[in-house]
Amino acid sequence: MNQILRVDMTTGRCVFQPRPAPLSGLGGRGLTSALTALETPAAAEPLGPRNRLIFAPGLLGGTNCANSGRISVGAKSPLTGGVKEANSGGQPGGHLARLGLSALIVEGQAPDGELQILEISRDGARLVPSTVTGLNNYPAAEALQARYGPAVSLILIGRAGEMRLAASSVAFTDVSGAPTRHAGRGGLGAVMGAKGLKAVALDPTGCPNPPLRDPEAFRRAADRFVAALKSHPVCGGSLAEYGSAAMMGLFDEAGALPTRNFSSGRFERAEALSGERLRALTEERGGQGRIRKGCMTGCVMRCSGDFPDVHGRLVGKWPDFETLWSFGPNVGVDDLDAVARFGRLCDDLGVDTIDVGASLALLMEAGVLPFGDAAGALRLVEEIGQGSPLGRLVGSGAAVVGKVYGLRRVPQVKGQALSAFDPRSVKGQGATFATSPQGPDHTAGLSYAANLLAAGGDVDPLQREGQADLSRRSQVMAAAVDALGLCLFVSFAFFDTPSALEAVADMLNARHGWSLTVNDLETLGEKILKIELAFNRRAGLTEAADRLPEFFASETSDVHGSTFDLSEEELDSVLGDLKGRDLTKDAD
Amino acid sequence: MNQILRVDMTTGRCVFQPRPAPLSGLGGRGLTSALTALETPAAAEPLGPRNRLIFAPGLLGGTNCANSGRISVGAKSPLTGGVKEANSGGQPGGHLARLGLSALIVEGQAPDGELQILEISRDGARLVPSTVTGLNNYPAAEALQARYGPAVSLILIGRAGEMRLAASSVAFTDVSGAPTRHAGRGGLGAVMGAKGLKAVALDPTGCPNPPLRDPEAFRRAADRFVAALKSHPVCGGSLAEYGSAAMMGLFDEAGALPTRNFSSGRFERAEALSGERLRALTEERGGQGRIRKGCMTGCVMRCSGDFPDVHGRLVGKWPDFETLWSFGPNVGVDDLDAVARFGRLCDDLGVDTIDVGASLALLMEAGVLPFGDAAGALRLVEEIGQGSPLGRLVGSGAAVVGKVYGLRRVPQVKGQALSAFDPRSVKGQGATFATSPQGPDHTAGLSYAANLLAAGGDVDPLQREGQADLSRRSQVMAAAVDALGLCLFVSFAFFDTPSALEAVADMLNARHGWSLTVNDLETLGEKILKIELAFNRRAGLTEAADRLPEFFASETSDVHGSTFDLSEEELDSVLGDLKGRDLTKDAD
Repeated sequence: MNQILRVDMTTGRCVFQPRPAPLSGLGGRGLTSALTALETPAAAEPLGPRNRLIFAPGLLGGTNCANSGRISVGAKSPLTGGVKEANSGGQPGGHLARLGLSALIVEGQAPDGELQILEISRDGARLVPSTVTGLNNYPAAEALQARYGPAVSLILIGRAGEMRLAASSVAFTDVSGAPTRHAGRGGLGAVMGAKGLKAVALDPTGCPNPPLRDPEAFRRAADRFVAALKSHPVCGGSLAEYGSAAMMGLFDEAGALPTRNFSSGRFERAEALSGERLRALTEERGGQGRIRKGCMTGCVMRCSGDFPDVHGRLVGKWPDFETLWSFGPNVGVDDLDAVARFGRLCDDLGVDTIDVGASLALLMEAGVLPFGDAAGALRLVEEIGQGSPLGRLVGSGAAVVGKVYGLRRVPQVKGQALSAFDPRSVKGQGATFATSPQGPDHTAGLSYAANLLAAGGDVDPLQREGQADLSRRSQVMAAAVDALGLCLFVSFAFFDTPSALEAVADMLNARHGWSLTVNDLETLGEKILKIELAFNRRAGLTEAADRLPEFFASETSDVHGSTFDLSEEELDSVLGDLKGRDLTKDAD
Repeated sequence: MNQILRVDMTTGRCVFQPRPAPLSGLGGRGLTSALTALETPAAAEPLGPRNRLIFAPGLLGGTNCANSGRISVGAKSPLTGGVKEANSGGQPGGHLARLGLSALIVEGQAPDGELQILEISRDGARLVPSTVTGLNNYPAAEALQARYGPAVSLILIGRAGEMRLAASSVAFTDVSGAPTRHAGRGGLGAVMGAKGLKAVALDPTGCPNPPLRDPEAFRRAADRFVAALKSHPVCGGSLAEYGSAAMMGLFDEAGALPTRNFSSGRFERAEALSGERLRALTEERGGQGRIRKGCMTGCVMRCSGDFPDVHGRLVGKWPDFETLWSFGPNVGVDDLDAVARFGRLCDDLGVDTIDVGASLALLMEAGVLPFGDAAGALRLVEEIGQGSPLGRLVGSGAAVVGKVYGLRRVPQVKGQALSAFDPRSVKGQGATFATSPQGPDHTAGLSYAANLLAAGGDVDPLQREGQADLSRRSQVMAAAVDALGLCLFVSFAFFDTPSALEAVADMLNARHGWSLTVNDLETLGEKILKIELAFNRRAGLTEAADRLPEFFASETSDVHGSTFDLSEEELDSVLGDLKGRDLTKDAD
């Protein structure tokens, strides 16, 4: 796993190269961000030929480590204008690792309108003309699975990515071969579409897992890690029982559940969208419904599932919490069937449920349709695929919709929509939304854990004190976890069970022959943030972009009477010590 | 003329204040930019209550100096995110000066949906509820002129500004009371709409011109200035004969006339849109048609007119060159009647013809309608007023349209559309488009004069050498001219007739009791640019924003085979010596 595959869409050339020495010790987000910083000119237009689209499994990718199969996608983002990494479950992360690839770099640009499919197997790589152009993810995946067989996993884009809409996602097939897993945020599907790449077919046939330097030590550490996950009340408990939907009640209780475009912190019908309800309905309907389904091989939390309709027929994957929120409280809808349909539509079109849901909420605020109009909102999502002006707007994300409708309350930072936290009620998360080089992602740092669960610290969510430091710690840990290829949910175990993090260090050492300590993982996270911050600086993102919208400071939370009142100085201090030098050449 | 009127839209209070001492010596753009820097937080949202909308006549405003009645409008721009000044002819500039106001500052924000009219006379100022809400500029102006009488001039916004569309203009009534003059660029109409201000009615009754410190010296200098203008081949010749449309042939000849969304530098039917044709058709049709009409009292160039339809009925003002271009070559239309209709529609809705024309060209590139489809394009402009999704997109400007349609060739810088120069063929102008703190305005610096007319220097338009210095000089002069309230076209006389600039310095001294030299005017221009650059820096605009779109470097001009090849270092050198310090407090 020390090779890089470089694919030039302009010339069609596919070249396997040794992994450059300066990139040793990096994987996942560490590798995508370092490669972006090294290879993509900071001034490059996100949808132009100079941008690179990079895929990388984590440092534990392809091993039997639990929950280690995430795949990172990186590029300069068409939404934020800065470096972006979005990672996903599904099978391609593990397959890339088994194919011996630490990264796949897609550069250049096919002529406008031409789409290709990249085939990768142990025999090599080649581009072939797309046979599924114009198809959305589900029919495209079905056609490609039929062609390539069930062993092959897919990376692909739907109509939204083909149209280069700024909220487009990159889809990955799951253990069932369905395109249910997405690198949703930052518009990376638009970058893939702009490159002219419709799909990547990964055939790991004949490729064993990458070698371990100390298999026995690895096995022992892996067992300890699994035990820690399984015994943890979140990782082995609520998440496993109810999926990420378990958070619905927690956030509602905390008055931090953004409702009707962030105009309230509680949703009066949150119960109808709870994890308990999701599970009960799935079990009650039976049929193709399924609970406790992992999103990738090796998952021990298994927080996903399949959602059935009233006849027991499959609608799509269990909506995760962010999707339940974005088509639930944030648009005033309490209908699980409508949310599941929304999730399926978004997965099919290949768009980010968060930015698209935020777009819908803004159109409701603008009076285009009323809050709570699930059917009307679903029709708007369908319009994305039709390429109508309104559909394109919805697929371009909340910041654009807010601008075109001249709105005052637009919950976005750096052009990307906020995910499901009200910053006035969980100020640590607000600090992370403001300052993350990735824009306001729920995955940029789990600051809410210390704010709401006393996990990884205990910081009053309504006070200013301690939020900057909490945000920094959260962001460093998230960056490290993203570099390992681990599911971010394992962080809950890290917060409470120090031995879980030690087990991870032990696995890294046993896999690569390193001698890392837990502290080195923190250093890894800091290094990644440094690289990202330096790229963003060169791309023109300054502290002025590290601010929340004004209405979070001028409108009080209806639950707590609070505003987001961290000062500019406090926000600038969050990652201040990681800025200031151009670390382009400092990736080693 | 040493008072400032401050209007708080939140409270409805109107307060006259003395002009702060640090702002002495500044007028027009100097004053709007300095006030923006001093009063608007750099992080303020352009459409939020913290932004200020500022109006200011120039330093020679209200005098009998020829062409000195321009009015500057300033704010943080919703298009560029930086400081913006757009100035306009019409009567309000002179009226503000006669009312003794060196600036009108509009701050705060009326409740959403409420629109007010600001009445100003020698008796004071007050806000009254709008009686013309929902009306476009022509019917609104007619209703308000009927109410306030013919002596009153108006500043107003149409439907686009009410909808807070980012390409909205601010309209000013002309000598006939029609809303034909516009501060078009930067979306300042959206700021006015966001404030909740529909119109300002200025009644100068009983207000004499501001006093002169040395009336006799002023008269002598004013006469010299008029003589210089009248004897100049551009100011007193081609502009007066054919309007700014005189440039059509020049730019086409130079291969610098952007055609069909900048895909060619020449338009095969440019002749049909020439100044000669415009004048001949106007004279031939007669009726309400009129040539040589000044846009404000005191104009000696009189480059405008009234355009009649085939029956001699008034369509609207003579389209100026940028409008002729934006709905002509850039969308592949050669029909003067269609262009005049476009100009009228844009004036009525209150939108910038440049950004709207660029939006239309992009929709043609996207295949929404074919190049050359004048009727279809006019229907899209009409949709702006209807608030349809596509209409709102067109009214949001080219950068947004380019994003929503996922286009690769989007001629914009800092979110604002380029005006009518191909940067590959007039590289000095390209350098100005890239680096001006105002975004790519044709008025940010007349670099093309030295590139194409050997006026104000002689720099080969296709070479890199000398463009950076030319751009700097052009921008400094433009900033100074904008501070004086002079029409930028007088620059042509400045280039060729040093005594014209001396006459201006003499008038300033005779008006204000100063002792400026011509060199001090250069210093004034530099000071304004410094203030603007420092504000932009704090607002988050770095050198990364001072770049032209990639396609100008990757696609060659079809006329010259050239690309825009100034290096990043050359671009950074243009205004490099004016950057680097935060000059917020350095406005004195």
